[in-house]
Amino acid sequence: MTAIFDEKARLGRWLAFEAALAASQAELGVIPAAAAQTICRTARLDALSLEEIKEAYQESTNSLVPLLGVLRRHCGPEAADYVHYGATTQDVLDTAEVLAHRQALAIIYGDLRQLAERLAALAGRHRSTPMIGRTHGQHALPITLGLKLAGWLGECLRHLERCGRQARALRYGQLGGATGTLAALGPRAVEIAERTLQRLGLERPPLAWHNQRDGMAELAALYGLLLSFCEKIAGEVVQLSRPEIGELTEGGPRGVSSTMPHKNNPVASQRLAALARHGRALVPVVLEATAHEHERDARRLWSEWPAMAQLAVYAGTAVQRCVGLCDNLRIDTQRMLANLRASGEAMLAEYLVFALAERHGRLAAQRLVRQLLEERELTGQPLADLLAQRSEAQDLDPALLAHPEAYRGLAEQLVDDALAQAAAALAAAPAELFAPAGEER
Amino acid sequence: MTAIFDEKARLGRWLAFEAALAASQAELGVIPAAAAQTICRTARLDALSLEEIKEAYQESTNSLVPLLGVLRRHCGPEAADYVHYGATTQDVLDTAEVLAHRQALAIIYGDLRQLAERLAALAGRHRSTPMIGRTHGQHALPITLGLKLAGWLGECLRHLERCGRQARALRYGQLGGATGTLAALGPRAVEIAERTLQRLGLERPPLAWHNQRDGMAELAALYGLLLSFCEKIAGEVVQLSRPEIGELTEGGPRGVSSTMPHKNNPVASQRLAALARHGRALVPVVLEATAHEHERDARRLWSEWPAMAQLAVYAGTAVQRCVGLCDNLRIDTQRMLANLRASGEAMLAEYLVFALAERHGRLAAQRLVRQLLEERELTGQPLADLLAQRSEAQDLDPALLAHPEAYRGLAEQLVDDALAQAAAALAAAPAELFAPAGEER
Amino acid sequence: MTAIFDEKARLGRWLAFEAALAASQAELGVIPAAAAQTICRTARLDALSLEEIKEAYQESTNSLVPLLGVLRRHCGPEAADYVHYGATTQDVLDTAEVLAHRQALAIIYGDLRQLAERLAALAGRHRSTPMIGRTHGQHALPITLGLKLAGWLGECLRHLERCGRQARALRYGQLGGATGTLAALGPRAVEIAERTLQRLGLERPPLAWHNQRDGMAELAALYGLLLSFCEKIAGEVVQLSRPEIGELTEGGPRGVSSTMPHKNNPVASQRLAALARHGRALVPVVLEATAHEHERDARRLWSEWPAMAQLAVYAGTAVQRCVGLCDNLRIDTQRMLANLRASGEAMLAEYLVFALAERHGRLAAQRLVRQLLEERELTGQPLADLLAQRSEAQDLDPALLAHPEAYRGLAEQLVDDALAQAAAALAAAPAELFAPAGEER
Amino acid sequence: MTAIFDEKARLGRWLAFEAALAASQAELGVIPAAAAQTICRTARLDALSLEEIKEAYQESTNSLVPLLGVLRRHCGPEAADYVHYGATTQDVLDTAEVLAHRQALAIIYGDLRQLAERLAALAGRHRSTPMIGRTHGQHALPITLGLKLAGWLGECLRHLERCGRQARALRYGQLGGATGTLAALGPRAVEIAERTLQRLGLERPPLAWHNQRDGMAELAALYGLLLSFCEKIAGEVVQLSRPEIGELTEGGPRGVSSTMPHKNNPVASQRLAALARHGRALVPVVLEATAHEHERDARRLWSEWPAMAQLAVYAGTAVQRCVGLCDNLRIDTQRMLANLRASGEAMLAEYLVFALAERHGRLAAQRLVRQLLEERELTGQPLADLLAQRSEAQDLDPALLAHPEAYRGLAEQLVDDALAQAAAALAAAPAELFAPAGEER
Repeated sequence: MTAIFDEKARLGRWLAFEAALAASQAELGVIPAAAAQTICRTARLDALSLEEIKEAYQESTNSLVPLLGVLRRHCGPEAADYVHYGATTQDVLDTAEVLAHRQALAIIYGDLRQLAERLAALAGRHRSTPMIGRTHGQHALPITLGLKLAGWLGECLRHLERCGRQARALRYGQLGGATGTLAALGPRAVEIAERTLQRLGLERPPLAWHNQRDGMAELAALYGLLLSFCEKIAGEVVQLSRPEIGELTEGGPRGVSSTMPHKNNPVASQRLAALARHGRALVPVVLEATAHEHERDARRLWSEWPAMAQLAVYAGTAVQRCVGLCDNLRIDTQRMLANLRASGEAMLAEYLVFALAERHGRLAAQRLVRQLLEERELTGQPLADLLAQRSEAQDLDPALLAHPEAYRGLAEQLVDDALAQAAAALAAAPAELFAPAGEER
Repeated sequence: MTAIFDEKARLGRWLAFEAALAASQAELGVIPAAAAQTICRTARLDALSLEEIKEAYQESTNSLVPLLGVLRRHCGPEAADYVHYGATTQDVLDTAEVLAHRQALAIIYGDLRQLAERLAALAGRHRSTPMIGRTHGQHALPITLGLKLAGWLGECLRHLERCGRQARALRYGQLGGATGTLAALGPRAVEIAERTLQRLGLERPPLAWHNQRDGMAELAALYGLLLSFCEKIAGEVVQLSRPEIGELTEGGPRGVSSTMPHKNNPVASQRLAALARHGRALVPVVLEATAHEHERDARRLWSEWPAMAQLAVYAGTAVQRCVGLCDNLRIDTQRMLANLRASGEAMLAEYLVFALAERHGRLAAQRLVRQLLEERELTGQPLADLLAQRSEAQDLDPALLAHPEAYRGLAEQLVDDALAQAAAALAAAPAELFAPAGEER
Repeated sequence: MTAIFDEKARLGRWLAFEAALAASQAELGVIPAAAAQTICRTARLDALSLEEIKEAYQESTNSLVPLLGVLRRHCGPEAADYVHYGATTQDVLDTAEVLAHRQALAIIYGDLRQLAERLAALAGRHRSTPMIGRTHGQHALPITLGLKLAGWLGECLRHLERCGRQARALRYGQLGGATGTLAALGPRAVEIAERTLQRLGLERPPLAWHNQRDGMAELAALYGLLLSFCEKIAGEVVQLSRPEIGELTEGGPRGVSSTMPHKNNPVASQRLAALARHGRALVPVVLEATAHEHERDARRLWSEWPAMAQLAVYAGTAVQRCVGLCDNLRIDTQRMLANLRASGEAMLAEYLVFALAERHGRLAAQRLVRQLLEERELTGQPLADLLAQRSEAQDLDPALLAHPEAYRGLAEQLVDDALAQAAAALAAAPAELFAPAGEER
Repeated sequence: MTAIFDEKARLGRWLAFEAALAASQAELGVIPAAAAQTICRTARLDALSLEEIKEAYQESTNSLVPLLGVLRRHCGPEAADYVHYGATTQDVLDTAEVLAHRQALAIIYGDLRQLAERLAALAGRHRSTPMIGRTHGQHALPITLGLKLAGWLGECLRHLERCGRQARALRYGQLGGATGTLAALGPRAVEIAERTLQRLGLERPPLAWHNQRDGMAELAALYGLLLSFCEKIAGEVVQLSRPEIGELTEGGPRGVSSTMPHKNNPVASQRLAALARHGRALVPVVLEATAHEHERDARRLWSEWPAMAQLAVYAGTAVQRCVGLCDNLRIDTQRMLANLRASGEAMLAEYLVFALAERHGRLAAQRLVRQLLEERELTGQPLADLLAQRSEAQDLDPALLAHPEAYRGLAEQLVDDALAQAAAALAAAPAELFAPAGEER
């Protein structure tokens, strides 16, 4: 993911734009064919000197001009004139931004698919594995591990769908000239723009979006969502791997301590949390950058471009590591059951209230249960014994009192339904975000 | 918009949930029909005492329990037991949240439609009105006012589409019980949930989304986008209404100064900017709240619920005011032309470069133009005169030199295309987000 | 805290400014004494009609002009002319903002003092109470509860000091006229400003700070710090009150569940966390608002003023509730010891490494300990037994092996030192932030 | 600034810590003198192989362990055992963080001093240069450029003071062992900690601040303030360099356009704005990171450390560039006067109101002035002529009517006072933040 956004890849995309532009202009007779051939041959990182480019950037803080200078030098005087002919810097940078984020989305899409498959497999395996459901950090009612995982799976599939939608939205390159009027591209401007962008696997936008950045902000929000999603999974691991709980443990390479050999720190999960915090902070930066001033607002572009790149790297890294986290997760079903049972009786309170309510009315049942729980706390007697002494409790399900984990409602049915839906969704979703030819499917 | 999120409306939605639940449970024979009738009759703000409710909330910080207490008291002992039967607090609050935001989206959708129509009308009227395009705050090349407005229109239509998409995503109510297993609703839980939510115009979600809040965060991002969009339009007014520029002025009621009677402050536009800044800051708060811990995480819910309500109020207010701003906007086309012409000659630099490049090569043309501009600065002579002395400039378009505003490329054609697309999109989009029956179209 | 920032209090402060201004101008002979008397008598909420004021605000969105209108009406034609004479709206609003935040700081200061005293008392009581130190959520080495509390105490005292510093920084009112030149106040402007602000317990700033808002942003950061501090304490309660851990429990009124009578949710702590998340998001809003444009920038003022008020309410509420949380905290020292001992032997790893290192070198010791821990895991034998079989372990402290909680280094000494420092700091700090006369001590 | 936070400098600081620790332990007889000598000689980047270190980091994601491994290898078996003896990773990283930010603060302090001197010189030179004061982006009343600059100067001096305060607060290193009890450092732990940190120019903190990060968050807020301050100055340049205004222009190297040779974009100023937006977003990230969980919370440390480094780089870069911006600023006093006079008469409205109010009462005067302004707008007649026809206007200052720029109140006196205060403050402030010996003065 970092490789997509490093300097070399960025320069490469910019050169690809210049080549596509020259080729298209030559096709339409706007510039000489020989010049275009030279430009296309030269506008490749391996045809230029990276040293020379780096030096050029020492002398100027402009993003593109130094590269164009080197390119022109290497093209020779004939072709130099036709480099970047009629384009504006932002055309190149925005188109390259789109290309980079499409690559990022494609990788993320693939990783999310993998994650969905892992989660589906795990949820199936653990559709009936009892664990306590926790609300407010406290024990509430039993669930199954499969139900928790099915929830993650559902969100994962929605993210998969969002990636597809963003990929479609992100299909427009940029080629509008200084103020979006295409003035400098001459009478065949529209055709030039169409061909140039098509060469790069993109479409011509109906209007230049130099100062309409809502698409980027929507993508930023998706990156933020993905980071928070990974943080949610990671947070579950951090909390449930506490030694007092011990239900989940990070597998994989151990987070070693420099002094405490006994520790097994949930290092990967914590890294995900840190990534999420950094990434989320950038979302309003990109949102703010859509409130563009006039036809182009460098304050906001220079804020958006790096923020988007950072976000993509953070989100892409997070999703990839999250796959690894789920791959290596160690699940201790014994601890899950033990933790559930530890507060098992108290946890049946809801069941008792509803069971007793049928005969005695709900409020009376609530009072009764609260009473019983207090008695239990005072006397230390098991709830079952206390209940046995009460006439009200005649027809309660004795199996449930012994096995509170069975009070899990429709958990298994819900998991089955969710898995069936997920299987259908995954079957319908393409294996890759873009077809080899660069078309999104 | 504030009315949707005020206390009364909120209590009303909660009561509506309880009524729908009771009615559905009675239909399925889970609770007595008489009790359900009492509950449905009583679970209305006009059947309860607002004073009594307020008092109840003095005694408890719980969100729902005090209201349920008052409702039970008013229902009498028979029905009281069947109030909120098998539901969990969050089921009520989440369902109510969905209902509120659907109302908010419907209003915003209507306002955005209006805004789109205004912008389309204005863009049509000003398709050829020349104004200077500004990049980096500096004069770049001519555009038409219509082109600027068409850009806003395009973004407005994308937001309209986003509202539709969010409305569809926001169709699930919540009814999962304490940990999403529906355990307390008994064997007919699924039917109860379906009927209850259908009564409220919603659907049963495949899984409880107590701890899957990605939908809310996506909506938060949309609110943030809308705020930034309004801020962009407002910012254009703030800057272009500077007395030195004077191209746009806020019409409508004047922002009076307590001491300076001559001032006409762009008050409405500045308010939009302040709203946007507040709203945007809440987006990462909601994003963070999706990283839910376990089956329910009150820290995050209590963070999300008010943040979402504030965001909806901010965004809804902003869009509404933005319609007003555009309605009342005064446009000074004379100043636009004068400002454009003031730097008219320099502004033709690009044209000259491209025109001269055809014969002399681009880099030579750039050098020549820079030279001419410097001469002009030194001598004060018009560019046309300086050009006349140069042999290189023989076949330049003399009309353009006299009327730099004509150098606007394809601006008008782009406006026409955009308007045609907008007309089609508006014709295809429903007049209202939801059909009267509560169905989104 | 809410009362400081409600509408009534705000209007009251604005009127107080107008009264102070009129009185000062009369003293200096700038306006007639009779007019000033009328204004001072009338510029009080109880002398005006709140209904009338509310109506006035229906007709205008200006912040101050409606109030001035009502005031002038009530003053009668003679005095009306001298109301708000030479001041600008922002002078009134900024001065009132300072007054409000000074009040807020005074309350927060008092609550922080209380919190510091509670924490000092608790830390003293628990200076030797053993508990496990947790890093990465995992068991690391023993600490004492007192050491944890002493850490909070130290931070609390630093916040106390910050409140004092902010109170001093926040001593300047505002009276600069439209652009800070005091032009409309006439030749005695400086004296007018000095007397007016002195009447309100404030000083004249060297320059108007209409567009220098760094002081407000610094205060915002303090509010943010306070919120995070309270969240830290609250977070400890949320986590350590998990049933699997059970070391801390929120006392006070129980967070009831609408269906699960057995639950005792850490409601107060979770509320603090939600407050912190909302408050923190406002800090960059205020920071951004310091990047003021020109002599006054309404976008940023209208962003800053409400953000500051919200922040003060959030932070003040949080600190106050945090005092309550600490007052009612139930501490289960038995569970603390049990949790510590549960991983007691493994936890001694560090001790063993250092003890064995003296003879065998550190890396060898580390290898040995890791080996022993693995053996223990495989065989289930206690570490002490395994060690007894090893010649390397001859002179290890047997008491420590039996009582791992004793391996707490200098915890007690550090607590004692911290408490001594805290006692000195609290003795030196004034009981209240401002002396009755409004002077900060 | 980047150099302080690059990888090499970071590794260097970590090694310096290990050397200081070994030297101190040897002094106190805790480790052999020979081992300490070896460690001190080896714990330097030039004594190790950077290649080897990089390889080691390929194999582990731990921050410190790979470096320690290389160091131990180079120290040889005898000394290896005494490397990092009794310390914990966070001790090293936190101490290094403090050292880095002290360096950053020292540079920022120097740059702020320079900036203050520039601003003072400019404010003195332009104490009487008339310009229009702008509020709401509109012309309000005259100020002098000196007054605007004096405002910046005042804020700059407050930031200078804040840097001094932060430097004092940032004087504590970290050496607490795994949970802050110093258990592994043995009986002479306190002395070891004191000497180690003193060697690095730091003090021993009363308690380990592993989980008390308020100091870092306060520093983060200062960085945020500095960024916003620079953005304010930059924003003034961006807006006042619009061609329609033309009062300020960025000097220095031009921001070239790839196609429009006539443009002179305020590139440096816009870069400052982008830096500010990125930096500010990190402030709540660091604030959140103070809500540490338990004795050490890696999620928050891994969030804080890089955020703080980014913030320092952003803020340091911004302040430095801001000095350059002010150095090269071109000021067009002719345009300032012309812009002021363009709305000169209307601008005198306030003066007229106050001057006429003396005789006719304020509200009457306001009505009259509004009338006159409307007449002027309708008839195009100069205000002076319209006034001449009015009996009310007999004793108005005719000079002021001709030279509205003279209506600047006490601007010059305020500048003089501010400059005198600034001179005193600068004379009192040390030339450098830390004395050569590392002591802050």
